[in-house]
Amino acid sequence: MEGFQFKTQLKVRYSEIDGQKIVFNAHYMTYLDIAISEYYSKGLQLDYVFADGIFDFVLAKSTLEYKQPARLNDVLDLWCRTVKIGRTSFVNEFVITRTEELDPLVKAEIIYVSIDPKTLKPQPMPELVRNRIEQFECDVDF
Amino acid sequence: MEGFQFKTQLKVRYSEIDGQKIVFNAHYMTYLDIAISEYYSKGLQLDYVFADGIFDFVLAKSTLEYKQPARLNDVLDLWCRTVKIGRTSFVNEFVITRTEELDPLVKAEIIYVSIDPKTLKPQPMPELVRNRIEQFECDVDF
Amino acid sequence: MEGFQFKTQLKVRYSEIDGQKIVFNAHYMTYLDIAISEYYSKGLQLDYVFADGIFDFVLAKSTLEYKQPARLNDVLDLWCRTVKIGRTSFVNEFVITRTEELDPLVKAEIIYVSIDPKTLKPQPMPELVRNRIEQFECDVDF
Amino acid sequence: MEGFQFKTQLKVRYSEIDGQKIVFNAHYMTYLDIAISEYYSKGLQLDYVFADGIFDFVLAKSTLEYKQPARLNDVLDLWCRTVKIGRTSFVNEFVITRTEELDPLVKAEIIYVSIDPKTLKPQPMPELVRNRIEQFECDVDF
Repeated sequence: MEGFQFKTQLKVRYSEIDGQKIVFNAHYMTYLDIAISEYYSKGLQLDYVFADGIFDFVLAKSTLEYKQPARLNDVLDLWCRTVKIGRTSFVNEFVITRTEELDPLVKAEIIYVSIDPKTLKPQPMPELVRNRIEQFECDVDF
Repeated sequence: MEGFQFKTQLKVRYSEIDGQKIVFNAHYMTYLDIAISEYYSKGLQLDYVFADGIFDFVLAKSTLEYKQPARLNDVLDLWCRTVKIGRTSFVNEFVITRTEELDPLVKAEIIYVSIDPKTLKPQPMPELVRNRIEQFECDVDF
Repeated sequence: MEGFQFKTQLKVRYSEIDGQKIVFNAHYMTYLDIAISEYYSKGLQLDYVFADGIFDFVLAKSTLEYKQPARLNDVLDLWCRTVKIGRTSFVNEFVITRTEELDPLVKAEIIYVSIDPKTLKPQPMPELVRNRIEQFECDVDF
Repeated sequence: MEGFQFKTQLKVRYSEIDGQKIVFNAHYMTYLDIAISEYYSKGLQLDYVFADGIFDFVLAKSTLEYKQPARLNDVLDLWCRTVKIGRTSFVNEFVITRTEELDPLVKAEIIYVSIDPKTLKPQPMPELVRNRIEQFECDVDF
């Protein structure tokens, strides 16, 4: 996917399809949560900032466009990148496709807020997280 | 809630809270699905259009703003109203509050597409559904 | 239901049905979790023992028999009673029926272990919880 | 795992942990559903019997023993084998462990009933499914 440095994969579970035999809409939010978790873990390799209690984040706003439904046993690519970093908030873009296909099933943008993991209150994004993202997302002009 | 003719209620389940002891974000999509279902059933009293296979709908776009987290055993009011009706698409607004409180936990807007339940393809919104909504949402200028 | 002092109710959600248009099996475990929570809260009125951190419990063993499937919008009665109290473990029986029907959809037995909420280690069941259950379950010979 | 010919793997999702930071009990049923699906697909390689509408199954009884909790990001091995085949019912055993560990987190036994996928009524297990299982489970004396 043009402009994306990271993707992760999953297979649609039987428990995730509904009476129309398509993925129930709420599960796409779970898929995006998996994508952002793996982006920070496998992509940015920042597991230690969560383990050390330096950084965490919560959702402020999510916008999802549902283009086509995913179905049972579909293997999905979840593309994720950071497109904007503010002082305490940052924005990620996501595209979900079937593996090896380019046609998006879902396109999404989520605004997150950086929080202090102890108090759960907003805090400025740590400099090291910001630097790591800027280095990783070499195509993005922040 | 000013301008809303309909609300339904639910109690946050233990299965819906996450490791931060707040409702996991994906469950808000399930809550909104409950709200729109009850809006059509108990509000508009249109169960028969679904039973008769005249009308159904799918999500095209969802936008949610997460203002404050809901917690275990919170009793929530789910407010729902239609704010726009196009030829095949329509837009609903939602507000989630704790019961008897006005402060929104979540605000949402969802664009739906009217489909033919047999083919799952878009179809113009049936006249009787459109009329029923216009009559019910007396405060909205469509 | 003969011998049961407590039931609670819920309506099957669209998010809970699967591609066969019946409730996906895992959701019955969530239903039983709702039943035991409400049994302790509304039945035994023991909310304060959880709030005070005196008592909590975890699952040791669950046995469910699936007699008939529940379907979309079914209103279910969840019957719950304690049938055995050991030193640190106790056993609850559950029956799920459609409201106003006696024919069980699901029958279940769950063995729980009493834990210290701080350490999450097994602890003897507090005397006041045991006494309250024995008083409530007047038909059961413990 | 002694006596098991098949395992599949998954990583615990953030959406699956509860307020005690352990996997919520209902998700183990979803894990076992993934295990049996992959057992038939990747193990027995019987995808075609489902695609052709020759065979399907429903749960009759599940028994799970919860030995130790799984936690966020745990990579789990889900072991699955058939231990008994009757005329219309069959029994599978499951063990869930952390990868590379032998200590079971969950042990389970599920009784399934073979159904006709069109009518959803019980039907004798197809000969070719029975034969394939007997060949695959070379250690089990049916």
